[in-house]
Amino acid sequence: MKSALYKLSATQVLELFKNNTITVETYARALLDRVNENESIVKAWAHLDPEFVITQAQTLDQVPPDQRGPLHGLAIGIKDIMNTKDMPTEYGSPIYRGHQPSSDSAAVAILRASGALIFGKTTTTEFTVTNSGPDTTNPRDPKRTPGGSSCGSAAAVAALHVPLSLGAQTGGSLIRPASFTGVYALKPTFNAISTEGQKAFAPTFDTFGFFARCVEDLQLLTDVFGLEDDESAKDTPLGEVSIALMKTPMWPAAGPGTISAMEKAAAILRDRGVKVEEVSFPPEISGPDELKRIQKVITLAEAQTSFLREYRLDKENLAPEIREIVENTTNVTHKEREQASDTYSQMRHVMNNLAQKYTAILTPSAVDEAPVGLEDMGRATFNTMWTASAPLHLPLAH
Amino acid sequence: MKSALYKLSATQVLELFKNNTITVETYARALLDRVNENESIVKAWAHLDPEFVITQAQTLDQVPPDQRGPLHGLAIGIKDIMNTKDMPTEYGSPIYRGHQPSSDSAAVAILRASGALIFGKTTTTEFTVTNSGPDTTNPRDPKRTPGGSSCGSAAAVAALHVPLSLGAQTGGSLIRPASFTGVYALKPTFNAISTEGQKAFAPTFDTFGFFARCVEDLQLLTDVFGLEDDESAKDTPLGEVSIALMKTPMWPAAGPGTISAMEKAAAILRDRGVKVEEVSFPPEISGPDELKRIQKVITLAEAQTSFLREYRLDKENLAPEIREIVENTTNVTHKEREQASDTYSQMRHVMNNLAQKYTAILTPSAVDEAPVGLEDMGRATFNTMWTASAPLHLPLAH
Repeated sequence: MKSALYKLSATQVLELFKNNTITVETYARALLDRVNENESIVKAWAHLDPEFVITQAQTLDQVPPDQRGPLHGLAIGIKDIMNTKDMPTEYGSPIYRGHQPSSDSAAVAILRASGALIFGKTTTTEFTVTNSGPDTTNPRDPKRTPGGSSCGSAAAVAALHVPLSLGAQTGGSLIRPASFTGVYALKPTFNAISTEGQKAFAPTFDTFGFFARCVEDLQLLTDVFGLEDDESAKDTPLGEVSIALMKTPMWPAAGPGTISAMEKAAAILRDRGVKVEEVSFPPEISGPDELKRIQKVITLAEAQTSFLREYRLDKENLAPEIREIVENTTNVTHKEREQASDTYSQMRHVMNNLAQKYTAILTPSAVDEAPVGLEDMGRATFNTMWTASAPLHLPLAH
Repeated sequence: MKSALYKLSATQVLELFKNNTITVETYARALLDRVNENESIVKAWAHLDPEFVITQAQTLDQVPPDQRGPLHGLAIGIKDIMNTKDMPTEYGSPIYRGHQPSSDSAAVAILRASGALIFGKTTTTEFTVTNSGPDTTNPRDPKRTPGGSSCGSAAAVAALHVPLSLGAQTGGSLIRPASFTGVYALKPTFNAISTEGQKAFAPTFDTFGFFARCVEDLQLLTDVFGLEDDESAKDTPLGEVSIALMKTPMWPAAGPGTISAMEKAAAILRDRGVKVEEVSFPPEISGPDELKRIQKVITLAEAQTSFLREYRLDKENLAPEIREIVENTTNVTHKEREQASDTYSQMRHVMNNLAQKYTAILTPSAVDEAPVGLEDMGRATFNTMWTASAPLHLPLAH
């Protein structure tokens, strides 16, 4: 009889470990069985060594109960742009085939020290930059993309391989795949969690985050990473909650799935007595074309620096679109970059002020449901403006 | 007879290699002899293995002339916060004693691919944060500090051990030790050169830069890192050059050495027909106390994230001041950090506009000459405001 432990949330599994109901090894074997069931279709893993997982689980089982960390035994998938000292890290690039770092990334080290079971490496597009590559499929429908660039981390959580996984977002690489695969993602504020030991793309946008199948599980990780707000959250009665419904200047791009999801979410909230107010972007914020242009200028200018190393060492094995970034074929100038940075800073200031008036903002996570096929991993249309200008506070994080 | 090759600039040595006048091994032996002469007093090196240097030099000598890189054979000292795949990297911290990375930092990899001779690791204060630690002395006067945090890199260049070395600046860690030891440093614009594989302190301030004994040698490195301005530099006649002399709001802190150096520099320029105009900071820029507060808030808030890993893994071996940053003993709030980031962005915008009116800005590099003793490595009083708000263009860089 196969174990159904793989279906449990991280919070539920943690309770079973605390009660000594199950061992980490039992849990790990249940997850590996689940992986075996559908990994040939999902293809979420860039590296997964079942024997090594079991050895790690057995080691965790030997830790005396009073020395166990807050994440003791929880299986976590690591996006393969984050260094792991005991697993290869290839950044989705042929240049780094078989590359073995000697140290964990900062976040992986913190999770490991908290007792997490580092389960394996999940697929990523090349350096998180390209919009296709991995043959990972969407666990909700294998004909569809799981979205990029954190495709493997979203798919592994949606396919019930692991309850938690790590990702990173420069444009929409966390929120979009979470939306496409029907799981939760948290993109904390820029630099709330260290990106050290994680491949850089555009350093002032690159943000570390994670996936789970419920909000409680996201909270487990925010606790371990020490994310706290200035004031402790209060249990606000629903009648005092105010939500800003922001369709954003990108709204004309929204497909029928997104339009109906937004309407449904607002209706559910209003039904429960929550005040939902439709709020336009303030007039100081640029229009959609200018917003896209600014984001592109900053991303391209910073990526030019980030990939100079790979360009100099092995440009033949770099995706043509990354080669073109380093060669600056679109002729981004320093002047344009300066202006884009200034505009973005002003936008962040305006958005911060606006956000403070509401309990939360409700805004689209994707253009529409996941596209059919694996060639187009979707657009970050509704994401980059938030990655770039997200208020420095977020409900679950700082 | 001892060789005097160690006295030559990198540009001069490069010429000797090109003409096949000397081998890299001959040059390396001359530098190692020089190190032997005074390293027991200077103490610039955290790691230096003479035999390994010779082996590397011999390998470079075997590269056929038509396959040699632009920096072929040039000896470069690497600040020990930057990863090197063939030398230990300890970040000035007991936590990382003997730590051996498996990869080079991005900058070291680019230099190595350009044919540079990676000579050794230079001393740094703990994670570049503390203001004492290494017993490195000032080659101009061993009773004085060389300044921090890039103490070893500045001292190694000033002591004629190597013609070039790498450093990084979050507050004043490049410009101040260069000033104290009488060498040149270039702090390019933020993110002009990748900091990947370099220990982070405050990521939105952390800036990669380098030391040399002449401007031509700095130029060699800007070329290798692809730093270019939007328009190629013109040979402007001296009579058309305009210099903004900016004493900055910190001027009351300037000691007699700095006051006289500034007066002398202005007098020399004016004598040559250069227009030197004293320019006050625009009224939109905060006063000195507020400027210091803003810089401190941003640095502390970001460092809290950067050192969580070391705090969680081995806080007993973390300097007390770094432990206190992670524990947020000064109670920096997210709200303060938001406001500080906004103010800093506005300041950068104002400074960019101002800088565009002049060919260059002349401003103090240190409070005064190097303090006596090794306990106090000096202040970043005149540096942090530029690290934080430096115009995105700089004459030699983008």
